Amino acid sequence: MTVAAPARTRPALLPPHELDALCARVRAFIDEQAIPREDYSRIHDVEWLDTVTRELRALAQAQGLIAPQLPIEAGGMGLCWQDCARVFEECGRSFIGAGALGCAAPDQPNIDTLMHLAAPSQQAQWLAPLMAGEIRSAFAMTEPSPGVGSDPRMLSTRARRDGDDWILDGHKWFTSGAVGAAFAIVVARSDEGASWFIVDTRNPGWKLIRAIPSIDPFSNGGHGEVMLENCRVSADALIGEAGKGFDYAQLRLEGARLFHCMRGIGLAARAIEIAQDYAVRRDSFGAKLSEHQQMQAMVADSHIDLYACRLMTADVARRLDAGESIRHTSSMAKVFVSEALNRVADRAAQMTGAIGMCQDQPIALIAQRLRPFRIYDGASEVHRAAIGKRIFQRGGRA
Amino acid sequence: MTVAAPARTRPALLPPHELDALCARVRAFIDEQAIPREDYSRIHDVEWLDTVTRELRALAQAQGLIAPQLPIEAGGMGLCWQDCARVFEECGRSFIGAGALGCAAPDQPNIDTLMHLAAPSQQAQWLAPLMAGEIRSAFAMTEPSPGVGSDPRMLSTRARRDGDDWILDGHKWFTSGAVGAAFAIVVARSDEGASWFIVDTRNPGWKLIRAIPSIDPFSNGGHGEVMLENCRVSADALIGEAGKGFDYAQLRLEGARLFHCMRGIGLAARAIEIAQDYAVRRDSFGAKLSEHQQMQAMVADSHIDLYACRLMTADVARRLDAGESIRHTSSMAKVFVSEALNRVADRAAQMTGAIGMCQDQPIALIAQRLRPFRIYDGASEVHRAAIGKRIFQRGGRA
Amino acid sequence: MTVAAPARTRPALLPPHELDALCARVRAFIDEQAIPREDYSRIHDVEWLDTVTRELRALAQAQGLIAPQLPIEAGGMGLCWQDCARVFEECGRSFIGAGALGCAAPDQPNIDTLMHLAAPSQQAQWLAPLMAGEIRSAFAMTEPSPGVGSDPRMLSTRARRDGDDWILDGHKWFTSGAVGAAFAIVVARSDEGASWFIVDTRNPGWKLIRAIPSIDPFSNGGHGEVMLENCRVSADALIGEAGKGFDYAQLRLEGARLFHCMRGIGLAARAIEIAQDYAVRRDSFGAKLSEHQQMQAMVADSHIDLYACRLMTADVARRLDAGESIRHTSSMAKVFVSEALNRVADRAAQMTGAIGMCQDQPIALIAQRLRPFRIYDGASEVHRAAIGKRIFQRGGRA
Amino acid sequence: MTVAAPARTRPALLPPHELDALCARVRAFIDEQAIPREDYSRIHDVEWLDTVTRELRALAQAQGLIAPQLPIEAGGMGLCWQDCARVFEECGRSFIGAGALGCAAPDQPNIDTLMHLAAPSQQAQWLAPLMAGEIRSAFAMTEPSPGVGSDPRMLSTRARRDGDDWILDGHKWFTSGAVGAAFAIVVARSDEGASWFIVDTRNPGWKLIRAIPSIDPFSNGGHGEVMLENCRVSADALIGEAGKGFDYAQLRLEGARLFHCMRGIGLAARAIEIAQDYAVRRDSFGAKLSEHQQMQAMVADSHIDLYACRLMTADVARRLDAGESIRHTSSMAKVFVSEALNRVADRAAQMTGAIGMCQDQPIALIAQRLRPFRIYDGASEVHRAAIGKRIFQRGGRA
Repeated sequence: MTVAAPARTRPALLPPHELDALCARVRAFIDEQAIPREDYSRIHDVEWLDTVTRELRALAQAQGLIAPQLPIEAGGMGLCWQDCARVFEECGRSFIGAGALGCAAPDQPNIDTLMHLAAPSQQAQWLAPLMAGEIRSAFAMTEPSPGVGSDPRMLSTRARRDGDDWILDGHKWFTSGAVGAAFAIVVARSDEGASWFIVDTRNPGWKLIRAIPSIDPFSNGGHGEVMLENCRVSADALIGEAGKGFDYAQLRLEGARLFHCMRGIGLAARAIEIAQDYAVRRDSFGAKLSEHQQMQAMVADSHIDLYACRLMTADVARRLDAGESIRHTSSMAKVFVSEALNRVADRAAQMTGAIGMCQDQPIALIAQRLRPFRIYDGASEVHRAAIGKRIFQRGGRA
Repeated sequence: MTVAAPARTRPALLPPHELDALCARVRAFIDEQAIPREDYSRIHDVEWLDTVTRELRALAQAQGLIAPQLPIEAGGMGLCWQDCARVFEECGRSFIGAGALGCAAPDQPNIDTLMHLAAPSQQAQWLAPLMAGEIRSAFAMTEPSPGVGSDPRMLSTRARRDGDDWILDGHKWFTSGAVGAAFAIVVARSDEGASWFIVDTRNPGWKLIRAIPSIDPFSNGGHGEVMLENCRVSADALIGEAGKGFDYAQLRLEGARLFHCMRGIGLAARAIEIAQDYAVRRDSFGAKLSEHQQMQAMVADSHIDLYACRLMTADVARRLDAGESIRHTSSMAKVFVSEALNRVADRAAQMTGAIGMCQDQPIALIAQRLRPFRIYDGASEVHRAAIGKRIFQRGGRA
Repeated sequence: MTVAAPARTRPALLPPHELDALCARVRAFIDEQAIPREDYSRIHDVEWLDTVTRELRALAQAQGLIAPQLPIEAGGMGLCWQDCARVFEECGRSFIGAGALGCAAPDQPNIDTLMHLAAPSQQAQWLAPLMAGEIRSAFAMTEPSPGVGSDPRMLSTRARRDGDDWILDGHKWFTSGAVGAAFAIVVARSDEGASWFIVDTRNPGWKLIRAIPSIDPFSNGGHGEVMLENCRVSADALIGEAGKGFDYAQLRLEGARLFHCMRGIGLAARAIEIAQDYAVRRDSFGAKLSEHQQMQAMVADSHIDLYACRLMTADVARRLDAGESIRHTSSMAKVFVSEALNRVADRAAQMTGAIGMCQDQPIALIAQRLRPFRIYDGASEVHRAAIGKRIFQRGGRA
Repeated sequence: MTVAAPARTRPALLPPHELDALCARVRAFIDEQAIPREDYSRIHDVEWLDTVTRELRALAQAQGLIAPQLPIEAGGMGLCWQDCARVFEECGRSFIGAGALGCAAPDQPNIDTLMHLAAPSQQAQWLAPLMAGEIRSAFAMTEPSPGVGSDPRMLSTRARRDGDDWILDGHKWFTSGAVGAAFAIVVARSDEGASWFIVDTRNPGWKLIRAIPSIDPFSNGGHGEVMLENCRVSADALIGEAGKGFDYAQLRLEGARLFHCMRGIGLAARAIEIAQDYAVRRDSFGAKLSEHQQMQAMVADSHIDLYACRLMTADVARRLDAGESIRHTSSMAKVFVSEALNRVADRAAQMTGAIGMCQDQPIALIAQRLRPFRIYDGASEVHRAAIGKRIFQRGGRA
């Protein structure tokens, strides 16, 4: 497998009917294969999730439904981001759907990053098996207080040279995908500034302390807490150039938050659909629930929210395809979409009452899965301040 | 002037750079000609508004900036609705800008309607001078309680045949454009159902009682209260077919609310721009206002709102151009956009403090202009109930 | 008339049945005398308002319904603030009710202030006729940008000594009550810091430029823009001590914003009552409006809001009666109540549709009157920042 | 132990300093004994919760801190409801605090109910050991669709007489406290209407199918799903009178939702206190988090919410003490408090970022515990419709 040319030269849009047909196939796959495999008694069982993901991935592969975002020559579907938005939404309807199609976080943005930044030897060793779904990866940037969270300047993990090697020392947590990962992308501060490294998790200096008991269910590889203690890596562990880590992080996050929007829309849409089905069947106060205006208003607001989410996500994807900077627009979309999807899931829970408060249906779990999206990849407050500052500095028209 | 073919066969999109150039010209015209003519001491002075609108219209005509939505052969710019969205927004930035360009309510949707429904003789007598800006028109559907408001079944104005003539009797209010209009489109109930009539306002049976003291400033022709008393019109006053009035109303409203979105976006954007300019200059608590996070968040949320409003408006316009039904999407857009624009104007007022509470700047007036948009053309609550019912009936995916 | 002892030693609560009876009398007076005199075509006519206020005040005086907040020996009702809350609410139901009872801003807080701070000669000259309703007063603190708004440090009006006199120079606006006032309390910066002065409006150095076209209707004395140009006042114009002006302002504002809450609750309650009356009579979609769940929810939320507003206002009044500091609680109440009352008025407008968008009923005017309450006496954003800082500094329990 | 006289004759308020001292003792107990015993790895472990509750209860008993709401002669503290509000809040700060003090749901409202309704023999057999904390109880009203949820008319569990016995058949779920309960209060439909029965959980006709995987952690006795199959109980199992079950339910719910408010306030206050402590220590973007205005605004809004919640809860408790009906006010308080507390917990989570998304701190768990409060005891939507209808029917003042 040859690793592909820079993904920023995106392919053209599929003809609408082809895209519709593809989405219908993905939807059928998710409905028939993924959703029935969801097991709400194993929401934090990373091993079980790995097993079922492998199984689903094989099925998806057999149907040609793998890696919508990757070039055809890299084994993917070769879709542009605007088309990916539709397909990611479809597979995002199931907690385990994106993993099945090879487009779940953190592997998907890690792949995207490595395709752009990794040296050929890094690509051969780590990217190729990652693309093939043979291994999983982690992304280790966030640190517990007083380390780096939303403010990149707080980065405290150190990288110092020792001969040709680097020695990494630091404390990471909320390391996405850490449990069971073959390698991690680690962000550390070297003399040049923030720098990115590939760390083999078998390295004795990489110590996974625990899986953090976070509230989001079915997270591939969970969120790890990791100590990097005298973690020696060779010179070829450096990704790209030393000191460019913040630029890389910015670029990765701009995309990653957009892809989260795509997947999250599917999950929230599923929640409100379940609530709709319930409301048309459930009697209450002499009528179907669906005949009560407050229910009608809740479902109307949810569809309006989803409508806006889809348009905004598609617009940012279009800009990414066109090679425009999405720093500002992806930040705006992230704030809007993450909050809108939480509103949708909350309404679905409210509409279904007791059912929305337990795990007999996935609504409560969807709400828990979507809640951290208002925090991960930059809390809404951080984005609002950044967006506002940018507007004030830039001046001019609204 | 030949009256044009049905507008639903819309022209193609302009090339982006042509559209950008056109918008820049409209913006310059609005900034240089319209905004300086706004007089906040005459917000309810319909005659003054007519005078200044005629003056501006002549200037716009001279610059080739008239009637973006009309076919070229009808003297307009021949733009599709999607392009109109951009141009309407630009002229909507001024209270008196849409009138200047010949695309203000109620004339603009009246023209749109008459192009589709009116007989050649009606078009010659009423549509041609209306398109030329020589006369103004009114739209008389709403009635005071217990008549028709949001619920079309409450229509109480009657139309009965008397020989070849029709006799109209009823009580209308919030008759848009009534003060100074040459004719009105009147919705009345005949034996066949709701029917539409053209009424010459010189008809002795048409009695304009008063201009209603509504809160929205700079309304072309104001909002009239009208008694129709033994109002005799000839057979050729009937528009289209008797009994089809509700279908016509539905079609008119679907478009009209979309066009309101287009114009309103411009007005709200202007409000937040004024607030931004103020915030970067005003000192408070040891810093510029713009350095305070709450200001940053307010401006961020406003840009996010405007971003969503524009995408949704453009999407519905695209569907209208494509000949799709926009009943559902224009209803969703109307709810979202009308509420979002009110939020934007409210934040602009809050950001500017005392200035936002008076008429030295137009922010308070913009808020008053946008407030009724949550009521006119169907209150948000009516739309939410209708949207919700439709979703429950249709079932299926969100 | 003897000017009373410090108002902070408040009288005891009335027995509940006496308070109820008093409120019923005030309510009847407002319903029968004040509301019928409201003329919505004269919302910014300060002279008309003075005339009708004088007329109403004489009627109130005749019924013993004057100055609930003043000591009995000063001609008032001698109520504690907690009881005043109820009475202020009752008279606040009419735009012109508080003026009728001699408890409208800015005279009422000016009287309160002067009772505490003014020298006997000042009290004799200015306070006595003010209490008697023979004159009106203004409060001149706010300045146009870059002067003082929310941040007291921006105060730019200067006071310098010239022999025994003071010379005041500066630019004020949103000077409450300025049009027709006999005197103004002016806040200016002297060498000692902020200082308060009584300025006779006949002073040639006091120049009323204009009544600011603010959006709030029926404002006693309007909001003036004033130039102080070489405005010479004698030594006895100083109120209290030079340099203590910020403390005085803080104290005045703490009370003033509480009294605004009391009056505003009455006005918002009136709006929702009008909406309720409309909803039970208006037919729509096969039922009374009041049978639609969205209407029920709007009225429920409004009553919940009013319930919370009344409890919070009463609690702060209780603390003020008890001699506790109300800096923190009155600030919290001001934010909550001003925003809640705006929600109530907005729902009332939404429930009444076209009626809520015009001046046939007072709902739209009530919304315009309440809007500036989110700005005047400190914008919500300024209060939120101050409240938050105080909590963080104080630490400990929530 | 003698079972007490009707609790509605409530004792007088404690002198404020005594109440403060009592609250301080409860707070110390909660901080020192309860909170350290919270184990976030056992959030759904009912047996562990029973063990730790027994242990804590013994400690509370030893300190005289048991059953604030029960009469002194029944072994309680003999507080009126208004004072209980303060004490319940203090113990509500810990997930396991109310259980420790013998005032957790569903036992506390069950005790309250049985004190009023149960026959002496029922009181001797079931109430006495329940008050003593020797057994736990369940409340079985809710049924899965299409049974009873918010609408009492949907009750489908049947009770038919068989000689002197009753035979109960039906399907219940969200039966609070079911796991490990000694008995349940079961609501079923007999010929007379809704009726209440005491069912010994050792009855072979009582079949606990499962503990429902609901999202709220640390629920005493969890939420059970139960089949009643040919469940024979003797005549003395009937509580009160047959056919009065809806009145009883109404009365129980009116109180129960108020007591939930009391306890919930404590939990939400704890969440925001943790967030405050974090914000004053955490550096971000060149300052402490607490110096950022958005954080200040979030903490300000949370304190404002808590202020309103406490006032409203105290006011309804005061009415309950006074023997007034609290149907309307407790319903308003329930809507406001349940939603306000969810806002507070959500802000606390947002302020603490990653920490608020996991179980290292209890914030995420507090949010999950409070979420169902918007559903249990009547969803907000049901209350809003009921409140609104009542207001429209009653008419008159707001």
